Amino acid sequence: MAKKTAIQPTRIEDYPQWYQQVIRAADMAEVSDVRGCMVIKPWGYAIWENMQAALDRMFKKTGHENAYFPLLIPLRFLEKEAEHVDGFAKECAVVTHHRLEPGPNGGLVPAGKLEEPLIVRPTSETIIGSSFARWVQSWRDLPLKINQWANVVRWEMRTRMFLRTSEFLWQEGHTAHATKEEALEETRLMLDVYADFAENWMAMPVIKGEKTAGERFPGAESTLTIEAMMQDRKALQSGTSHFLGQNFAKAQDIKFQDSEGKEVHAWTTSWGLSTRMVGALIMTHSDDDGLVLPPRLAPRQVVIMPIIKGDSDREAILQYCRGIERDLSESSFMGEPVRVLLDDRDMRGGEKKWHHVKRGVPLRLEVGPRDMAGDNVFMNRRDTGESQSMGRQELITNIESLLKQIQSGLYAKALKLREDNTVRIDSLAEFRDYFTAENTQKPEIHGGFAMCHWAEDPSLDKILDELRVTIRCIPFDEPEEQGTCIFTGKPSTKRAVFGKSY
Amino acid sequence: MAKKTAIQPTRIEDYPQWYQQVIRAADMAEVSDVRGCMVIKPWGYAIWENMQAALDRMFKKTGHENAYFPLLIPLRFLEKEAEHVDGFAKECAVVTHHRLEPGPNGGLVPAGKLEEPLIVRPTSETIIGSSFARWVQSWRDLPLKINQWANVVRWEMRTRMFLRTSEFLWQEGHTAHATKEEALEETRLMLDVYADFAENWMAMPVIKGEKTAGERFPGAESTLTIEAMMQDRKALQSGTSHFLGQNFAKAQDIKFQDSEGKEVHAWTTSWGLSTRMVGALIMTHSDDDGLVLPPRLAPRQVVIMPIIKGDSDREAILQYCRGIERDLSESSFMGEPVRVLLDDRDMRGGEKKWHHVKRGVPLRLEVGPRDMAGDNVFMNRRDTGESQSMGRQELITNIESLLKQIQSGLYAKALKLREDNTVRIDSLAEFRDYFTAENTQKPEIHGGFAMCHWAEDPSLDKILDELRVTIRCIPFDEPEEQGTCIFTGKPSTKRAVFGKSY
Repeated sequence: MAKKTAIQPTRIEDYPQWYQQVIRAADMAEVSDVRGCMVIKPWGYAIWENMQAALDRMFKKTGHENAYFPLLIPLRFLEKEAEHVDGFAKECAVVTHHRLEPGPNGGLVPAGKLEEPLIVRPTSETIIGSSFARWVQSWRDLPLKINQWANVVRWEMRTRMFLRTSEFLWQEGHTAHATKEEALEETRLMLDVYADFAENWMAMPVIKGEKTAGERFPGAESTLTIEAMMQDRKALQSGTSHFLGQNFAKAQDIKFQDSEGKEVHAWTTSWGLSTRMVGALIMTHSDDDGLVLPPRLAPRQVVIMPIIKGDSDREAILQYCRGIERDLSESSFMGEPVRVLLDDRDMRGGEKKWHHVKRGVPLRLEVGPRDMAGDNVFMNRRDTGESQSMGRQELITNIESLLKQIQSGLYAKALKLREDNTVRIDSLAEFRDYFTAENTQKPEIHGGFAMCHWAEDPSLDKILDELRVTIRCIPFDEPEEQGTCIFTGKPSTKRAVFGKSY
Repeated sequence: MAKKTAIQPTRIEDYPQWYQQVIRAADMAEVSDVRGCMVIKPWGYAIWENMQAALDRMFKKTGHENAYFPLLIPLRFLEKEAEHVDGFAKECAVVTHHRLEPGPNGGLVPAGKLEEPLIVRPTSETIIGSSFARWVQSWRDLPLKINQWANVVRWEMRTRMFLRTSEFLWQEGHTAHATKEEALEETRLMLDVYADFAENWMAMPVIKGEKTAGERFPGAESTLTIEAMMQDRKALQSGTSHFLGQNFAKAQDIKFQDSEGKEVHAWTTSWGLSTRMVGALIMTHSDDDGLVLPPRLAPRQVVIMPIIKGDSDREAILQYCRGIERDLSESSFMGEPVRVLLDDRDMRGGEKKWHHVKRGVPLRLEVGPRDMAGDNVFMNRRDTGESQSMGRQELITNIESLLKQIQSGLYAKALKLREDNTVRIDSLAEFRDYFTAENTQKPEIHGGFAMCHWAEDPSLDKILDELRVTIRCIPFDEPEEQGTCIFTGKPSTKRAVFGKSY
């Protein structure tokens, strides 16, 4: 008989539905009444706040400052940068009026037509560029390294919570530099920051690499990316860092006098990471009982559940639990106080347990009269499902190493999944087979990551489109080697990562 | 001869212009290319970040959780709550299209007309209410205490940086309760949180009170406010907390089964505080040399400026300064590490000094060869202008009490200004005179706060409009006393605060 799971359907039965149900069971977000937009509920938002705090510290440590630029962008700004606009301006929210008035049939109608429509930012290169053009006059004003935490809107036709929504939250970094070398260095530095965050905070292994020309950010000279594998073997682009060359600087007139008094255009970069990462986090670690959270990003790392049988022992058990709560709060994990919740709600034990299982709290402690009598706690690990009775002092002493074990265990498990599902493929027939053959164990899953030789050629698109496969990136740490493009037979010196994607 | 000041004009010469120039000199913000919207530059944004961090901790401590709701609100939502809409929906950004297409004359034109227009949120009662209606089913779901950090847009005709801009940043709290009493308590609790923040973080004294019916938030049953006096004697409404009764709950169908199984509407509150507070901070403390910051909100509390005369002593002085930087960073002020900057830029000493004076850094330390030789620093206080030579160890030992002195000194000074400019007035003639007579010392300033007996009456509006005076609030800690309304002669039991305002 199959084990009863908290999430129906399971990953194997229907991965996309499983994903929606995990979000629902963990009470992270819900579909809103506004087309394509979601409501991020407290548990989901607290995870995003932890992500923000970690990233913000990293950005400041690497010399960036936060600022804030207008939400609404004049239409003429978008017209300046043709290639960028082709990529972005197609589907966006357009503000055309600035007033509501009573309509002829009751209700309200738009009034006060604007002379020039305004666009709700889909990204802020153009509006930030217009400030940079004012701020940058001399080489002494450079480098200029700015980050913004903001909401953006891209009118999406098919949406999925966290992964693709019309409005989403993100950070966008924008920098200007005196030299090409410095801008290239910054582009790479911020990709490394993203990879550090993904691997060490999210416990999500990533492949760092460069996008091919066809997959670049509109207007960029190169786009660097971190790519992660989800449990359905699909790739999720998890953060991108763009070297914009002088393209945006020229369109927006960002120029400066260099140390010899010559007027030249700046070199710019931009890089962004969004609430999509909450989706990535869910899909990397969660299981058929719901969310699984790496301790570094969990809003609560430990929950204490008093097991109270009768009124007589209530106060004694609560007292004991409060002591554990205090000791844990005074312990630290990775330099921060352990985040602990004493859940003393009056609720059936099973219901309470599953509440926290589905929300992915890394450690659950059950404390009943017998545990108290032996100065013990009954500990349950969310990641492995292991339970054991443990001395109270032993728990306090070992809490940091326990949480570290969970953090690194999740990373190792995710890395193994990726390694087990990455193959080197040297023929088109094998490639087709890899991405179409049914996996007997997991009939809905085709393939994983394929490392293949390739060459830029229009014929690739057709084959890849047909298989619904994309080139994810050209990985930095793939060695150079002589090979043959499996699509065209042209010579190739480096393999790229191919995969289905979100 | 008048002392030369860094800010021209001075406060006395032209207060509104002085305000703009302080912002400019401190590099806090700039007007953007988007009508009515500003760009918040790093120094201004860092102050807002410090405000956010302090408030966010207070909200969480009082049991609130953060969440995030959609930016765009369907038009029909606004039509639900007639009174609220009358107050808000008049001037707002209306999204009518979701695409841009190439136009007939080149350029881009709006396309993809929406079936229902969307409004960029001017505040989120309606959209959050629609989630609350789903979340609240039973008395067990209450209280529901949510906060959101967000941007909002209100189409303003006359704008001023931080004080009134079409887009601004704020937090909005929204709560739902089972009983009227609990909602009233929450409304008052959050006003107290705002007052605590204003007085203890911003060093800005405030009067807590209730708005009169005419000044209430649209749709609220009562609006509580904190009111502060700026240096031009005008009032600035600094944070409001609204008791919404069951009005919004009825419009939005937020109802629950009470413990007896009866279905009843919830009682709701909302409360908000915005980037306007950065404007209030500027106007409360700054002087004719620029920004003055209370240490608790200053992005940098101490700046160290090495005075290097020749290359020979450069390394020794820098070394000495780095030691001071380290010792200060390891000291704490109000439970957080002291925020210190070693400014070793190669720049003329006077220019560097004024850079930090205009940005309001509370303490400047100048360190030259003679200071180093005596193990001293030369300390300058931004608030009082006092300078003194001081032993290095003495500085480190006393840094917390020094910063506390500055913090409380700024508060005391602001309180004295308010007290010196608050009068009790008992006749209309005197009232008229107070708000029109030229102050011989400060010809542009008329009046301050007037505490007067009053009664609700339509005739008040005319007189107040003419004098450009408003009732700021009915203060909580004004005693009950028998009196006569100075406008109508009706009996009155309590004085209200009258003043000109922002």
